[in-house]
Amino acid sequence: CINGARLWDSLMTLARIGGTEKGGVNRLALTELDKEGRHLFVQWAKDIGCTIRVDELGNIFARREGQDPQLPPVMTGSHIDTQPTGGKFDGNYGVLAGLEVLRTLNDLQIRTRAPLEVVVWTNEEGSRFVPVMMGSGVYVGAFSAQTALHSTDTKGISVAAALADIGYDGAVPCRATPVKSYFEAHIEQGPVLERRSHTIGVVTGALGQRWYDVQVQGVESHAGTTPMELRRDALLPAMRIMNEVNEIGRRYGEDGRGTVGWVDVYPNSRNVIPGRVRFSVDLRALTDDDLSAMSADFQRYCDAMADTYQVQIHAEEVVYFPPQAFAAAQVAAVEKNAARLGYGHSRLVSGAGHDAVYLARICPAAMIFIPCKDGISHNEIEDALPEHVEAGCNVLLHCMLDEAGV
Amino acid sequence: CINGARLWDSLMTLARIGGTEKGGVNRLALTELDKEGRHLFVQWAKDIGCTIRVDELGNIFARREGQDPQLPPVMTGSHIDTQPTGGKFDGNYGVLAGLEVLRTLNDLQIRTRAPLEVVVWTNEEGSRFVPVMMGSGVYVGAFSAQTALHSTDTKGISVAAALADIGYDGAVPCRATPVKSYFEAHIEQGPVLERRSHTIGVVTGALGQRWYDVQVQGVESHAGTTPMELRRDALLPAMRIMNEVNEIGRRYGEDGRGTVGWVDVYPNSRNVIPGRVRFSVDLRALTDDDLSAMSADFQRYCDAMADTYQVQIHAEEVVYFPPQAFAAAQVAAVEKNAARLGYGHSRLVSGAGHDAVYLARICPAAMIFIPCKDGISHNEIEDALPEHVEAGCNVLLHCMLDEAGV
Ligand SMILES: NC(=O)NCCC(=O)O
Ligand SMILES: NC(=O)NCCC(=O)O
Repeated sequence: CINGARLWDSLMTLARIGGTEKGGVNRLALTELDKEGRHLFVQWAKDIGCTIRVDELGNIFARREGQDPQLPPVMTGSHIDTQPTGGKFDGNYGVLAGLEVLRTLNDLQIRTRAPLEVVVWTNEEGSRFVPVMMGSGVYVGAFSAQTALHSTDTKGISVAAALADIGYDGAVPCRATPVKSYFEAHIEQGPVLERRSHTIGVVTGALGQRWYDVQVQGVESHAGTTPMELRRDALLPAMRIMNEVNEIGRRYGEDGRGTVGWVDVYPNSRNVIPGRVRFSVDLRALTDDDLSAMSADFQRYCDAMADTYQVQIHAEEVVYFPPQAFAAAQVAAVEKNAARLGYGHSRLVSGAGHDAVYLARICPAAMIFIPCKDGISHNEIEDALPEHVEAGCNVLLHCMLDEAGV
Repeated sequence: CINGARLWDSLMTLARIGGTEKGGVNRLALTELDKEGRHLFVQWAKDIGCTIRVDELGNIFARREGQDPQLPPVMTGSHIDTQPTGGKFDGNYGVLAGLEVLRTLNDLQIRTRAPLEVVVWTNEEGSRFVPVMMGSGVYVGAFSAQTALHSTDTKGISVAAALADIGYDGAVPCRATPVKSYFEAHIEQGPVLERRSHTIGVVTGALGQRWYDVQVQGVESHAGTTPMELRRDALLPAMRIMNEVNEIGRRYGEDGRGTVGWVDVYPNSRNVIPGRVRFSVDLRALTDDDLSAMSADFQRYCDAMADTYQVQIHAEEVVYFPPQAFAAAQVAAVEKNAARLGYGHSRLVSGAGHDAVYLARICPAAMIFIPCKDGISHNEIEDALPEHVEAGCNVLLHCMLDEAGV
């Protein structure tokens, strides 16, 4: 079994880098603070005899050699960049749980047959640079290293420049080499496990996502002098569509999601009828068929509203992630080990994207979720219980041992 | 008859002070540009022999003495402050139409029995300082001079300081003295006259207004990981209320209005379920009974939505103007003179607030509307036809002559 106190201590130590007054962490990708966090991880990994490899995207691979160095490694990892008002666990937990697995194997003087690698993926959050899940995305070939390196933050600083600044512009190309399997431990970031009073979530896959930018163009005019029947209020059809997005989310089973998170009204003045409303739409589903059907429902509804209200409505797709099932054998391994260790557990699907979702494109992958308090994440008050943190890491240890062999 | 070309020329000359590239005017209340505009008006008024009085709120009264200086004056006026993206006509037309009436009487060497006064009311627009219609509001006692003078702009500059800066902090107390009657010429700022192909709008009164700030407090959470049935999305009840505000506007006859112009979503991130939504509500009606009924409908609906969605909803009233009927005799005078001069005309109600609406509290008042292009106002493309500008001023001339006597 792993050392829960040591893992907790490492989490709290890393959380001090960029720690906020409210107990959260503000450590954006490729900043000075990210550099400090990376240095700490690298030092800890070297302390237990790992070799370090940094690729051109700044992904850090800490390797514990196997009895047979020719075998593809069993990999784990996550990210240590955070949201500007992020928490201590999102990402950091997956990285430090991997490190704790290696520390435990050192303690127990176990040498696995296959090598083990713990990876810190660059810029998972996408707060400072888009696309999100950048390091793992390039690694699996979802988009090119050049696309990623040329991406700039709001100040115009590129990923390439930021990597050079913090000295994590590695020489190794960012391209997948054979991986035996990939496991990632993560807080659930949702309320399901807590509601079920389960310690371990056996993640069967991740929802597909389609995101849209919608613009409704009406005619702005004076709220007092324009009779109701002469208005071309952009807010009315926008509201109808926003409501329908929610209905669509409910129509496609328990895993369907429909969310409007961002709204922009123009000119946004109390006594001016809105002339233009823009908003985001985020649709998620378990199957690509459902996701396509949701998207078609949504687009049809937009067209109907454009007719009904005599306004122009334009919906542009800005993100598409297909649904991703995790590998049956690795999912079963998570389940088996959770049961063997006596942890309350159940299967669930990840509503959010993770580095593991990309890794599943190139190797058998699975995830281990633990509950987080009130299902809250991307928030400074994000929290998790030490016993859950320990339990997830124990499941990770046994999954990796099973895969790597002893 | 008045000199249409001279009036148009004065409008265009004044519009150059703060004139924008798009042909509009940006001349916020009590700025250097407002000072220039005021100086120009004062110079023009002095040129035709008027005496000038400036009160403590900066309201400018240009007086043309009557045969009987003891008689209360017949008054006209409006404002010359504009919205930041305002037009050439809103307010400016009423002031310069008044000046043109005096110029015409000089040309015709007519001395009226009662004195005539043309007033420039301070800060009608309320863009820089609240409350709106400040100068006329204090004049009629709607709120105190102290309240107005202590009001500050976003930089913390008070009305008192801004008045002193531009030298319009007059010595005369801002308090109504007897006024025989008040007429105000104004562009309609709406589409009704244009639709009816009428030149003159005989304004019978102004809609009452009740404005609210609404806040819906739900729980923000992750758009991917939070199942639909576990959400407390603040946007859903907010949208339902916004839609109902529109329905309420339609339910109370052709003069009912219900508008949501301002919306603020928090945290306003694409993949975060909104935890808080704030928005404005603007209800208007012809009678106070209707306005109260609309307000009750709205509040009941808020309560129902709070129950249905299990969120907190708070609606605070921030503005109340009771409906204001104009004086029957003065409205009839506008109608009679429009007919006598051969202008197509019809009665309508002002959906917007105006200085005349306050003046109606202390003296018989009426308004003369002329069409504006496409009903557009508070916009740099605000426009009006020279023949309409001339027609409205002719009606004003005859109404003032009728009242003042010759
Ligand atoms: N894990 C996570 O929060 N990913 C962000 C992208 C998403 O909304 O799924
Ligand atoms: N005339 C005018 O636009 N007044 C502003 C206040 C209102 O919305 O009625």
